[in-house]
Amino acid sequence: MNTSSSEPKVREACGIVGIAHSSDDVALPLYYALYALQHRGQESAGIAVFRGMSTDENPDERDAQAKEIRSEKGMGLVAEVFSPQHLAELQGSMGIGHVRYPTTGAPLLENAEPLVVNYQKGEFALAHNGNLVNTRELRAELEREGRIFHSETDTEVIAQLLARELVEHDPIAALTEVMRRVVGSYSLAILMDSMLLAVRDPFGIKPLCIGALTDERRSMNVGYVIASESPAIDTLGGTLIRDVNPGEMLVIHASHPARARNPADHRDLKLIRHQLHPGVPSAHCVFEYIYFARPDSIIDGQLVYDVRMKIGERLAVEHPVSADIVTPVPDSGITCAIGYAKRSGIEYLEGLIKNRYVGRTFIMPEQRARDMSVHAKFNIVRANVAGKRVVLVDDSIVRGTTMRKLVRYLRAAGAKEVHLRIGSPPIIAPCYLGIDTPTRDELIASTRTIEAIRDYLAADSLGYLSLQGLIMAVGIEANSLCLGCLTEHYPVRIPGERCSALQATLT
Amino acid sequence: MNTSSSEPKVREACGIVGIAHSSDDVALPLYYALYALQHRGQESAGIAVFRGMSTDENPDERDAQAKEIRSEKGMGLVAEVFSPQHLAELQGSMGIGHVRYPTTGAPLLENAEPLVVNYQKGEFALAHNGNLVNTRELRAELEREGRIFHSETDTEVIAQLLARELVEHDPIAALTEVMRRVVGSYSLAILMDSMLLAVRDPFGIKPLCIGALTDERRSMNVGYVIASESPAIDTLGGTLIRDVNPGEMLVIHASHPARARNPADHRDLKLIRHQLHPGVPSAHCVFEYIYFARPDSIIDGQLVYDVRMKIGERLAVEHPVSADIVTPVPDSGITCAIGYAKRSGIEYLEGLIKNRYVGRTFIMPEQRARDMSVHAKFNIVRANVAGKRVVLVDDSIVRGTTMRKLVRYLRAAGAKEVHLRIGSPPIIAPCYLGIDTPTRDELIASTRTIEAIRDYLAADSLGYLSLQGLIMAVGIEANSLCLGCLTEHYPVRIPGERCSALQATLT
Amino acid sequence: MNTSSSEPKVREACGIVGIAHSSDDVALPLYYALYALQHRGQESAGIAVFRGMSTDENPDERDAQAKEIRSEKGMGLVAEVFSPQHLAELQGSMGIGHVRYPTTGAPLLENAEPLVVNYQKGEFALAHNGNLVNTRELRAELEREGRIFHSETDTEVIAQLLARELVEHDPIAALTEVMRRVVGSYSLAILMDSMLLAVRDPFGIKPLCIGALTDERRSMNVGYVIASESPAIDTLGGTLIRDVNPGEMLVIHASHPARARNPADHRDLKLIRHQLHPGVPSAHCVFEYIYFARPDSIIDGQLVYDVRMKIGERLAVEHPVSADIVTPVPDSGITCAIGYAKRSGIEYLEGLIKNRYVGRTFIMPEQRARDMSVHAKFNIVRANVAGKRVVLVDDSIVRGTTMRKLVRYLRAAGAKEVHLRIGSPPIIAPCYLGIDTPTRDELIASTRTIEAIRDYLAADSLGYLSLQGLIMAVGIEANSLCLGCLTEHYPVRIPGERCSALQATLT
Amino acid sequence: MNTSSSEPKVREACGIVGIAHSSDDVALPLYYALYALQHRGQESAGIAVFRGMSTDENPDERDAQAKEIRSEKGMGLVAEVFSPQHLAELQGSMGIGHVRYPTTGAPLLENAEPLVVNYQKGEFALAHNGNLVNTRELRAELEREGRIFHSETDTEVIAQLLARELVEHDPIAALTEVMRRVVGSYSLAILMDSMLLAVRDPFGIKPLCIGALTDERRSMNVGYVIASESPAIDTLGGTLIRDVNPGEMLVIHASHPARARNPADHRDLKLIRHQLHPGVPSAHCVFEYIYFARPDSIIDGQLVYDVRMKIGERLAVEHPVSADIVTPVPDSGITCAIGYAKRSGIEYLEGLIKNRYVGRTFIMPEQRARDMSVHAKFNIVRANVAGKRVVLVDDSIVRGTTMRKLVRYLRAAGAKEVHLRIGSPPIIAPCYLGIDTPTRDELIASTRTIEAIRDYLAADSLGYLSLQGLIMAVGIEANSLCLGCLTEHYPVRIPGERCSALQATLT
Repeated sequence: MNTSSSEPKVREACGIVGIAHSSDDVALPLYYALYALQHRGQESAGIAVFRGMSTDENPDERDAQAKEIRSEKGMGLVAEVFSPQHLAELQGSMGIGHVRYPTTGAPLLENAEPLVVNYQKGEFALAHNGNLVNTRELRAELEREGRIFHSETDTEVIAQLLARELVEHDPIAALTEVMRRVVGSYSLAILMDSMLLAVRDPFGIKPLCIGALTDERRSMNVGYVIASESPAIDTLGGTLIRDVNPGEMLVIHASHPARARNPADHRDLKLIRHQLHPGVPSAHCVFEYIYFARPDSIIDGQLVYDVRMKIGERLAVEHPVSADIVTPVPDSGITCAIGYAKRSGIEYLEGLIKNRYVGRTFIMPEQRARDMSVHAKFNIVRANVAGKRVVLVDDSIVRGTTMRKLVRYLRAAGAKEVHLRIGSPPIIAPCYLGIDTPTRDELIASTRTIEAIRDYLAADSLGYLSLQGLIMAVGIEANSLCLGCLTEHYPVRIPGERCSALQATLT
Repeated sequence: MNTSSSEPKVREACGIVGIAHSSDDVALPLYYALYALQHRGQESAGIAVFRGMSTDENPDERDAQAKEIRSEKGMGLVAEVFSPQHLAELQGSMGIGHVRYPTTGAPLLENAEPLVVNYQKGEFALAHNGNLVNTRELRAELEREGRIFHSETDTEVIAQLLARELVEHDPIAALTEVMRRVVGSYSLAILMDSMLLAVRDPFGIKPLCIGALTDERRSMNVGYVIASESPAIDTLGGTLIRDVNPGEMLVIHASHPARARNPADHRDLKLIRHQLHPGVPSAHCVFEYIYFARPDSIIDGQLVYDVRMKIGERLAVEHPVSADIVTPVPDSGITCAIGYAKRSGIEYLEGLIKNRYVGRTFIMPEQRARDMSVHAKFNIVRANVAGKRVVLVDDSIVRGTTMRKLVRYLRAAGAKEVHLRIGSPPIIAPCYLGIDTPTRDELIASTRTIEAIRDYLAADSLGYLSLQGLIMAVGIEANSLCLGCLTEHYPVRIPGERCSALQATLT
Repeated sequence: MNTSSSEPKVREACGIVGIAHSSDDVALPLYYALYALQHRGQESAGIAVFRGMSTDENPDERDAQAKEIRSEKGMGLVAEVFSPQHLAELQGSMGIGHVRYPTTGAPLLENAEPLVVNYQKGEFALAHNGNLVNTRELRAELEREGRIFHSETDTEVIAQLLARELVEHDPIAALTEVMRRVVGSYSLAILMDSMLLAVRDPFGIKPLCIGALTDERRSMNVGYVIASESPAIDTLGGTLIRDVNPGEMLVIHASHPARARNPADHRDLKLIRHQLHPGVPSAHCVFEYIYFARPDSIIDGQLVYDVRMKIGERLAVEHPVSADIVTPVPDSGITCAIGYAKRSGIEYLEGLIKNRYVGRTFIMPEQRARDMSVHAKFNIVRANVAGKRVVLVDDSIVRGTTMRKLVRYLRAAGAKEVHLRIGSPPIIAPCYLGIDTPTRDELIASTRTIEAIRDYLAADSLGYLSLQGLIMAVGIEANSLCLGCLTEHYPVRIPGERCSALQATLT
Repeated sequence: MNTSSSEPKVREACGIVGIAHSSDDVALPLYYALYALQHRGQESAGIAVFRGMSTDENPDERDAQAKEIRSEKGMGLVAEVFSPQHLAELQGSMGIGHVRYPTTGAPLLENAEPLVVNYQKGEFALAHNGNLVNTRELRAELEREGRIFHSETDTEVIAQLLARELVEHDPIAALTEVMRRVVGSYSLAILMDSMLLAVRDPFGIKPLCIGALTDERRSMNVGYVIASESPAIDTLGGTLIRDVNPGEMLVIHASHPARARNPADHRDLKLIRHQLHPGVPSAHCVFEYIYFARPDSIIDGQLVYDVRMKIGERLAVEHPVSADIVTPVPDSGITCAIGYAKRSGIEYLEGLIKNRYVGRTFIMPEQRARDMSVHAKFNIVRANVAGKRVVLVDDSIVRGTTMRKLVRYLRAAGAKEVHLRIGSPPIIAPCYLGIDTPTRDELIASTRTIEAIRDYLAADSLGYLSLQGLIMAVGIEANSLCLGCLTEHYPVRIPGERCSALQATLT
């Protein structure tokens, strides 16, 4: 009843951000950075800041009662969770933030992140994007030691492992040790012991990048931003430095000037990198380029908009058709359709209008209501399609149910022909590494031939982009990508699934 | 503090809908219809249904305590205001709905519509889109009779006038009388005395249309939908019949079959029209075509998408430029930019990405925060603009503050030249007829030359569409449009403003 | 489902308060005064203040947009409705407040008071305690003039009548005129035209009193308080002056010192009285003494605690019994039981303990749950009653259902005998004048003999106080009391009921 | 700002309950039992039920995803936290509940109990009343093992210890082991492994009792109730069996009938007791008798009402005075005052009226507001005290600030003399074992002589009950009571405090 009729076709796990500033509070920049990452998770949002870094407090005289880390979390969109008062209370010049879709665990506030816990030496906060594949084993091991869990999340497993290592190791060594144990996709932002730490899994499956904040008047670096996607850095007026490397750990900490009470004074931020797991081939998630990431993101060196334009162009080459207009399924197919139109020379015209306010409606059980809810999401511009041969472009097909309705609506509006062009190869297998795809049963392409899919969708023709075409468009070599959902070969061992030869050597 | 950083440039007053069905409950269709009209008002939403029409109730044995009309209203988006339980409780086969932006009155729940009131013979409910210009006089007249007002809205004034006329007149005569008294823009949906009434002001300033709901299996008409815009009808799978004529009153009522308890049985719906004020020239709001209406709306016979494409094309003819790409300010400039690109032959490429989740954030007082909030709304796709000569297309310029920032961002991202092309003539005067424009002081074009505006915006060139070009694109003759904000000539007398000669004869 | 298992046996309509202060804001005193009147209504609470009286504002330069009267209302207890921020925003040195139980109209926020309306000359606010008996006629008359009603309340009827009279009359004359038209019980506090007005109906059915606020350091009067009960005055450290007389109108207004900006300066408050309807016999509600009013209230010259003690003592004289302990039904029977114990010489011992937190639980449909909910309200102190002959004292019996259970619980706990002593005569008829009694059908004493009631309650004996005894205890002569629920003779004409000869002459 | 002006003088930690039923769901009984224990904690409330016990589910086919334990927790009163829908969803025939005041940890939802955690073999839920004195050491030990804590509560410490022991031990052995490690006061209700476990600390500091639920028609035991106080059992219509012994563990589990689907069938409940720590002298909290417990509770064999009556009577013997009336500070002094009046022969008369709705108001910073807030809580019945010599009775004095105001109010109302009689010896030291007393600095009696206290309170005389008198009234020998706050000798070693010789041997 409370599921959304307009939920995305597949859901991204999460978005993370971490900011360290030499003088200012970071709650407001964290807020806007999360805002820029909202597409990566709409279920909950959270911010945690390290209070001790504030210049007007004396870290040596910490009240035992006072918490080092303050956090605020809530269900819903970033703009709904945080009030100006919250941000004012979250004082501190180092912090992390998180937006979340549940991949494991129910949609509960107790699963919202960052997770803030007490451990032997104080507190730490943890924000995670990804999905581990050995959670069950790790959890069993921890439970055998009599540990308790308050949630079902991977994040709590990581936190417990980390706390265990912290008994004998310093933060960097402890986190290194944790990275040896966990398998799967993970980008982490951690606030601990006056430091901001960021790590990306050895395959670099989920994106993570680092940028610099600059004081323009004084031409000096005043802060660092770690984020799932680069537009979070852009939003703050910062500059993208580079992607965090697969298996890399970045550590940012501040050397306090001696008791400076002048707010103009600021700390020196030191950025230290630790490259772990060198020489492992990458396995960047190809679906970030196809669907998830914002078009204005630069991920592992590639501008997503550019990749999608090339996808559209290649699609026009691979699957040409004689038609009157090219029209996208908004918003996922827009860039792709522009590319197709450009290369094919067929006019780009919007035949479907997406309701900008669609988002969080409920699904009523009756068929009548389900029809209305799809209509409420997409409406046909009848005059643009009537009597025309239409090329309808989308980035991918998951279940096919919405696409089938769109084809029917287009025909009802008078389209003479409907040719589907899809900016990816057929999705034939589930993702185990951070994307909430349906099971094989529900994936339309897992058991059907392309002709059978075309028949089900009632399209005049159906063209999927080839795997080779996709790889060329992305511009990263195949063995540095995770193509599991398209090839059934995954970079890590997953029970019942095949593992890519190259990458499997590591796990 | 709670104003949105991403509020639309100018705000539409409201959207209204009314549905009568021969057998089904209308709460769910009203919900989806309002959903389709959400762009016309996001402050509050409401639904009122007439209970007596339900087939399984006996209208003759009405419990005196039981309300004939049930309603549910709340602050926020349609999807936030209504729960499935609300809709289940709003039983009835006739109803009206409303989404609202405040043009008069503060943003209070008590101003949310439909307004439901008790009068001599029972209850009526009223939903209004528009703005009266003689409210003050009408209100003074009513107050001189010792009447009290619970709100500051035009809608309560109309309700009081109506109740006064209903003492001696039947509903149709009473509403006719009210239409003689009120001056300004108004589209109304009224639920009264087992009838659904819809009226559009004599100038047809605000849009209103009527559609039919059909039972496809039995090829029979099963209901009518009155709506501010036609996509509300499309969403329900209905068919647009036509626009409601200026000065027309439509009355839908049902002849009850004798105590039919069989839910398959249904009432005959009768649609009666009353043309009032014949021969008055229309004054359709031109801004509906330029900015407000959905692109998939058909208003007064014109498809909005088509108008905007033609605007873009004419703009290319009127203001050609040598450039590398055409890029829209999303979403308001998209269709226009496609038209410009098509006619000019310059490549269409997205240089600005709009955050889909922008919407309801708060404005922080500091400059730093204001910058972040614009960045949070629009991000530059650097690679698409760097080193390029960019034509930036938007539908209109109101204050110019955001446009100025966008030009600066484009240059910072490396654009070699930035040429602005605007799909309307300069806005030089306020709207008094339902649009919440700023005062003349705040309108960038009210006192500046185009060169001065270009200079302020720091653009390489600036081209506004000519008035003649706009009228040609809209396809309606000038003296049937309200062009007040562009020409300072209004269709009704407004203190301190000039009145169009032709239309003024009436008022 | 959401009805309370612990709702009072009969519900009082409302409590009202009005405060005028020569220099301070009155929101906080209004808050605490309402707190003291919370027992008179727990459904909603509201405060309205007149802003113009604030010394640092110029009443002559009122911004047309600015509201003269600010109000805050909400559902629930006083402490739940108002936050410190609300009180800070309600600036003004004159105001009124209201706590409400619904006697007419559903439990909706729109029925919460004070009712604030716009009329010809500005705004007025109205708070009402009582119940009119000619609402239907008045409303029909107003509706015949084409007036609309937003609620079902008597209060809106009074407001409409008042606004109508205000067209031609000044406030005092207008209110006098309204008092000629409305029939029933009403105590009103009105904020209008820089004045605080208070009226009590010609019979003085509902209580209303006036007190003074004193600046102790300067021994000067600094304000007035109008309140339903005197503890509201006590709470503010004020002094009870006297009851408002039946049919009296009190008007408090302030003469502004010339533009004084010094907050230490203050206005002179003038209190003017208008005695309307002289010579009408009173009809003070006897149930205020029996049950409703706080024991520390002084109503029409009588201390309620004292009345209840005397009731208990007379009960001991009228219905002596040989027993071991006297125990009250807490809290309603406590003072009565102390009186009974004192006069009879039988030991006072608490045999029933009332859960202090009982209040707003829900009623589950099953019998099992209903039993638990009564047990949750009252528990037996087994050792205090086992083997004892118990005199159980309560103020009155309405339906008898709870009393029957208590007798059963006492016996189950080992009480040898249970003798019921009731501090009022049998309630045989409904109240039409402000108390939410059940219908005759539900009143256990309306059709049963006392022996039949005793039998139903399964008590060893049952003694009701005689009418004469009650009148003696109250200390007011019978023909100055409303005894309708005990005698079926009412002070005003009520369709289907008899009217007291003396008082009926007026109506 | 949100602290209550009417918060109790000292705050009790918590109340717990556990119910096992042979056939019915226990959520509703848990709700009413918590309702009866509401006085023990008003900050949060929670219920956890074991789903597997429901007769219509098959425990062998548990869905791995489905939680065995369902819980619902919230901030506020029991009646505010739970809706009928919550209770309907909490299906299961075994469960525990908790109401809470924070003694450790901030007032956060994450501190609400029962605490439900995942451990190696599934889930367990834990509700705790008491306070450990070796938390710091235990926590440090657990943190040295790399464990993380989500809260600051003792309860999480106990849960972690328990989970650690459960790796190698069965639940009973594990809990026994935990009881060897934790020192302080604790009454626990635990839901684990299809069992309901209850333990009381070796000193029996906090109360805990067990009762039986009986099917009256079939005269058979159908369930057990474990509760902090016996009225929780009374409310359910159950029968108090006895107190849980100090150091005792009770285990209730059910033998499932073979797949019985007939709801009339029920399981056999087995109650097993494990007496741990035999031979340790008890240390029952004496303040339960003086102030905390409900008067209708029977704790460690003593009826609290009876104890308080005797306290009043002894007080009359120890501190006689010539006076006109005895009046209590309501509600805490009522029973005491009745006892005093009975023994002294002085008339019992209520001179102070407590506002029944006082509870959760806010404290305004200004003095004026603070005065109003005390007046809002207590009002004087002037006629009952004017010109009288008053004996004012209360159970205890903590800070003395409210008492001082009451004496002043009584004199202002005309009392000729005010004699204070206090039903306990002076409170000279803090409690470390579950009661939230202020520090020594704030305790009026910690450094002042009785004469100095009398002088501060401005009373004519002041009489505290002697320690010997208190012990006689309680009826339990001194060395079986915890008298720490009165004697500065505690039953367990507390840094900086003395330990009672006898009891200290154990710790």
